[in-house]
Amino acid sequence: MGTESNQRVVVARRPAGRPVPADFALQSAAQPEGEGVLCDVLFISLDPYLRGRLSGRHISGPIAVGEVMSSELVLRVAEDCGGCRVGDRVRAFGPWQRRVRLPAAALTPVPQNVAPASLALGVLGMPGLTAYAGVTRLLQPQAGQTAVVSAAAGPVGATVGQLCKAAGARVVGIAGGGEKCAWPLNQAGFDVAIDRHRQPLREALDAACPDGIDLYFDNVGGDMLQAVLERLALGARVALCGLMDQYNQEMPPPGPNPALIIRARAMVQGLVVYDHEDLRGRMEADLSVRLQAGELAFKEDVAEGLGEAGAAFCRLMAGKTFGKALVKVAD
Amino acid sequence: MGTESNQRVVVARRPAGRPVPADFALQSAAQPEGEGVLCDVLFISLDPYLRGRLSGRHISGPIAVGEVMSSELVLRVAEDCGGCRVGDRVRAFGPWQRRVRLPAAALTPVPQNVAPASLALGVLGMPGLTAYAGVTRLLQPQAGQTAVVSAAAGPVGATVGQLCKAAGARVVGIAGGGEKCAWPLNQAGFDVAIDRHRQPLREALDAACPDGIDLYFDNVGGDMLQAVLERLALGARVALCGLMDQYNQEMPPPGPNPALIIRARAMVQGLVVYDHEDLRGRMEADLSVRLQAGELAFKEDVAEGLGEAGAAFCRLMAGKTFGKALVKVAD
Repeated sequence: MGTESNQRVVVARRPAGRPVPADFALQSAAQPEGEGVLCDVLFISLDPYLRGRLSGRHISGPIAVGEVMSSELVLRVAEDCGGCRVGDRVRAFGPWQRRVRLPAAALTPVPQNVAPASLALGVLGMPGLTAYAGVTRLLQPQAGQTAVVSAAAGPVGATVGQLCKAAGARVVGIAGGGEKCAWPLNQAGFDVAIDRHRQPLREALDAACPDGIDLYFDNVGGDMLQAVLERLALGARVALCGLMDQYNQEMPPPGPNPALIIRARAMVQGLVVYDHEDLRGRMEADLSVRLQAGELAFKEDVAEGLGEAGAAFCRLMAGKTFGKALVKVAD
Repeated sequence: MGTESNQRVVVARRPAGRPVPADFALQSAAQPEGEGVLCDVLFISLDPYLRGRLSGRHISGPIAVGEVMSSELVLRVAEDCGGCRVGDRVRAFGPWQRRVRLPAAALTPVPQNVAPASLALGVLGMPGLTAYAGVTRLLQPQAGQTAVVSAAAGPVGATVGQLCKAAGARVVGIAGGGEKCAWPLNQAGFDVAIDRHRQPLREALDAACPDGIDLYFDNVGGDMLQAVLERLALGARVALCGLMDQYNQEMPPPGPNPALIIRARAMVQGLVVYDHEDLRGRMEADLSVRLQAGELAFKEDVAEGLGEAGAAFCRLMAGKTFGKALVKVAD
């Protein structure tokens, strides 16, 4: 890369409702100078929680108009520095920019034993840790239980479903569209996939879960959460993780009536992945083994080039990506 | 009691919204004949869940128009039968009727070591068991935590608060009216009492819980649940037990947005006392000791006479009773 050609993506305006590509702008940027390890960004992770940051209401802090977008990245180290060698692939939180300098302490080696390196942003990264913590700590699936997973073709939902299945549960996925239903069924071992674009959700859940729903991992909120809570089995466990249904809304809508939780004597817990960093080593080790054994399917949706990052994020927030949403910035 | 003077209370019409005395009717009744142990009803328990039964939407089953009202009773055995002797005081679920016959297997002796016998419907009965299970199994209070209890002057809330206090928590009660706030503070050892009739709830909670709310026992639902969830501390535990705010409504309203649960990484659980019968012996033993030691305050609101039962239930559902609501039918 030439020294004059650094680029970055900034927030051009605050999205109103569902974001559109013009909410983001590609700009030229100065070469990074000063402290930190010089790195080339290889992959950018696109995640629904970023929409909350753009509205100023995510616990990880806001991103204001004019600021550079930021999220988790996979990077290649471009200069030797302390524990890093040129060519090392690392993971860090950082700006959507071709070339960056980041503190050495912020760089974490990506798992070396599994390819591609982008997995450090998906099954072996934050989505994988989210799923792993949600299943092992919150849902605690038992053989014979019925588990429902929303956003079943996404990296969190697909991993949650496969981990529940491995624990002996029957797994029902919900996704939007025929392809996104076929993949969990045919590649990820789900027992049932419900297409929320084509099937009446309540009837489909009744048919798929005749004895009620024991476990629910929620990435969506809204009416889907309502429909599932209406069908909880006694003693159900619910992990509330994402609220895709409301991230594009200015004001959070009301939620389900608490009588649904009382009636089922359910345990409903909020899941924030940051609380579970202590589990990351075990997650990486466990899921790497499953990946190498071909027992854990994953799907990536890779946009090519930094200039596509804004548009790709808009596709994610419109429910149009299929698999872990990534931007490939460099090889 | 003369053999001709049996009486009962029936549902005269289905209540619309908040019940009124004319929804109930006192009728003469035949003397109970046939199987079962003859008993005189001494006390009738009035409980908010009965409103749900009148609407046909409580898990313990409906009560239809024309049917005799029923709830938990304290009775005096009127004839020797099996394990029962004339004069024994027992507890059972049964009709609002002066004199009844109930299967011997349905009769449970009331704790003998604590007076009055009506405690078997309050602190040593279902409300006590609800509180005991909620605190020991769901809330699990730790020293230094801040616990909020709604309906703090009621038998469940008052007991929950005192058990949390005994575990070392700071206890904030919410009740409706000056008397109902003075009693938890002065008699039951609460640290703070918020008068929901006079104080803006959110400001009062902010003042009482500057570090957020660690534990919440909810008897109310509605906006009170919303206001508390907005103020949860990280890792909060919430027991959902009652929904006084909506029992008089025809349709359940929506509830709080799930983002409030996620943000606090809260654990929200539904509590139904029927699941915790296994705990009753321990509850009776533990709370009896506390009562005898004068370490557990209780308050009763006793209406006199079967003819007052309907009106007393209406007062309960209007939030106008103060303490465990009972009807005294006979001495």
